[in-house]
Amino acid sequence: MNSENRDKLRDEASSDENKSYVSPAVIKRLPRYYRYLRELLQNDILRISSGELSKLMHVTASQIRQDLNCFGGFGQQGYGYNVKYLYGKIGEILGVSHNFSAVIIGSGNLGRALAASPIFERRGIRLTALFDNSPDVIGKEISGYTVKSMDELEEYCKNNTVNIAVLTLPKTVVRETAEQLADMGIKGLWNFASTEIDLTHKGVVTQNVHMGDSLMTLCYELTK
Amino acid sequence: MNSENRDKLRDEASSDENKSYVSPAVIKRLPRYYRYLRELLQNDILRISSGELSKLMHVTASQIRQDLNCFGGFGQQGYGYNVKYLYGKIGEILGVSHNFSAVIIGSGNLGRALAASPIFERRGIRLTALFDNSPDVIGKEISGYTVKSMDELEEYCKNNTVNIAVLTLPKTVVRETAEQLADMGIKGLWNFASTEIDLTHKGVVTQNVHMGDSLMTLCYELTK
Repeated sequence: MNSENRDKLRDEASSDENKSYVSPAVIKRLPRYYRYLRELLQNDILRISSGELSKLMHVTASQIRQDLNCFGGFGQQGYGYNVKYLYGKIGEILGVSHNFSAVIIGSGNLGRALAASPIFERRGIRLTALFDNSPDVIGKEISGYTVKSMDELEEYCKNNTVNIAVLTLPKTVVRETAEQLADMGIKGLWNFASTEIDLTHKGVVTQNVHMGDSLMTLCYELTK
Repeated sequence: MNSENRDKLRDEASSDENKSYVSPAVIKRLPRYYRYLRELLQNDILRISSGELSKLMHVTASQIRQDLNCFGGFGQQGYGYNVKYLYGKIGEILGVSHNFSAVIIGSGNLGRALAASPIFERRGIRLTALFDNSPDVIGKEISGYTVKSMDELEEYCKNNTVNIAVLTLPKTVVRETAEQLADMGIKGLWNFASTEIDLTHKGVVTQNVHMGDSLMTLCYELTK
């Protein structure tokens, strides 16, 4: 039996025990569905067929049906998916309903861009504070937040629940800072410092963002 | 014959005709290799074995050997890869040596963050200008560039080669702007406006960046 079939069997077995089990491969694709479903909702589209969604997302209709089957929420053949239901269900699985809180470490241009964007709010995440170590920035107001000193971080983490730290600080200091954050009990790091951070041994999960990778793919496509 | 074997055979056949053919699956992974190889070079590491690279990158050594075999540049068993050679070769394939030029459209926080970062220079891309349509920003100096008005863009594109436009402007205006850029002859779009742009029918390639997707994956990992 190849590993794909084994996964499938395991998936099926699991879904018997626990209706909300979703395989890791599907999980990886869910944020993209979530994004498209939100756009549909914003345009007041409440029902969509797998065929229509397929055209929109450039994914085969059969892939969509496979991915979304486990969520239910769709009626008879030809009736299409209930967009609002699916959006809610996917959000729930991805942790949107957990009401996570986040702080931004590094209040330079990128930190400010993120603080001003709807990126947290849209995913049910409360941004609660911005930190920096530069006297030029500390005390300034950015998007309604007064930037705090890094010296206040430990105290802040003691008095407030912080699930996620967004790392928009220089590469040279990011590793040391990440270690400190882990020791303060922060369990999620969203790292923009274009270097790989791995603190799984401290029970911390990290998403390392590498924006340059997509720029290189773009360059490659331009050479073809 | 399964599709993987077919790809393999085709790859082998192609590499007989043309030594620099690399399969799309490998291409997709190259930016990540490029990034790690740069870090090695920065740390004066000039040779690395597939085993060491495997540990560093959390990829199996056999995957690495498969991916990098087509580039040559490695000596006898146990001698390891020539880091500088591989870095140069991968850069060449990804278009680094094409000396592409780019402009940033939208000089808000994200545009400024990108302009100040080494993200272009590191990939052999010349950032030549920043544009905005806000009178508050036009004429201001950002990272050594005087922000130009969007009204000057068409003229600028006539007098200068522009390969890539970086779209760091609001979602509400990005589609219209992208169409205009395509009509001005720009062939590559790097889109940060968190909406999907597809102008392949105009011969334009686009990389749509969705930073929120990795944030959602992080949230999901936090719920486990």
